Amino acid sequence: MATYTEGHMLKIFIGESEMYNHETLYHAIILKLKEYGVSGATTLRGIEGFGQNNRRSHKPLHMLSGDLPIVIEVIDTPERIDAILEVIQPMVKEGMIARIHNVEIIHSDSSI
Amino acid sequence: MATYTEGHMLKIFIGESEMYNHETLYHAIILKLKEYGVSGATTLRGIEGFGQNNRRSHKPLHMLSGDLPIVIEVIDTPERIDAILEVIQPMVKEGMIARIHNVEIIHSDSSI
Amino acid sequence: MATYTEGHMLKIFIGESEMYNHETLYHAIILKLKEYGVSGATTLRGIEGFGQNNRRSHKPLHMLSGDLPIVIEVIDTPERIDAILEVIQPMVKEGMIARIHNVEIIHSDSSI
Repeated sequence: MATYTEGHMLKIFIGESEMYNHETLYHAIILKLKEYGVSGATTLRGIEGFGQNNRRSHKPLHMLSGDLPIVIEVIDTPERIDAILEVIQPMVKEGMIARIHNVEIIHSDSSI
Repeated sequence: MATYTEGHMLKIFIGESEMYNHETLYHAIILKLKEYGVSGATTLRGIEGFGQNNRRSHKPLHMLSGDLPIVIEVIDTPERIDAILEVIQPMVKEGMIARIHNVEIIHSDSSI
Repeated sequence: MATYTEGHMLKIFIGESEMYNHETLYHAIILKLKEYGVSGATTLRGIEGFGQNNRRSHKPLHMLSGDLPIVIEVIDTPERIDAILEVIQPMVKEGMIARIHNVEIIHSDSSI
């Protein structure tokens, strides 16, 4: 039988070309999440979007290359999400962070 | 310190090849969202899927090209999500729209 | 006017190269979801990630090819999500499954 833990999901919306020190911001965020012991994270690249980057509003909307939108998804316990928000939020100058409540983290029954 | 606003997330699941007037439906939706002053939206293209388009159920499931699934994500205040739903819903004849509650929009502390 | 049904969203995080019998796990899951009458599902491939697969933790983080992260999203009624979880959970040995509550499934008004 499955058991579960209460969790939250963080969705971080940024632009692919944003930099943090000498690397892409999205990769810097993934490294930071791993350093902080988050159990998992996934980076998705969109094909179109707006609003992740204020500078983008001056660009044509339909971008097939260049500064594509990035979404990083992290699911963990509410306490751990609190902790990583303190670290990740200052890294995201432009873009948007959203936290989704009422997420059950389903644990595998390893006896199956 | 971070502050936040209560928000909702809309997820719009459609097929990549669906058209609206003379452009792709997914691009038409993004243009409409921008016209209505939504602060941001992201379009993701999947690699496989079913159900976004009734016609698709007659096609082989494993599609590496052609009518791939599209997911558009929008996060905004509940009132603004209400307003754009009235505009977007009539555009989506096939496909699915879901609204996720309990989303916190995290605001950057610009003093950092 | 729009009507809606209460729903849940399942997010299944796995590695692209994981196998189930003689096919990829992500495709096997999509086939199973279709077999169980789920109304729709979408498979997204990420560009970076960790944690979907324990073996991955020994690999370099920045993977542009090879075992990329996969996210499968399914939205349906809570009862149907319960039923498919019983079938899908034993298929996911490594990776993570999360269930998001408070999802409204918006129904099109076909009279429009």
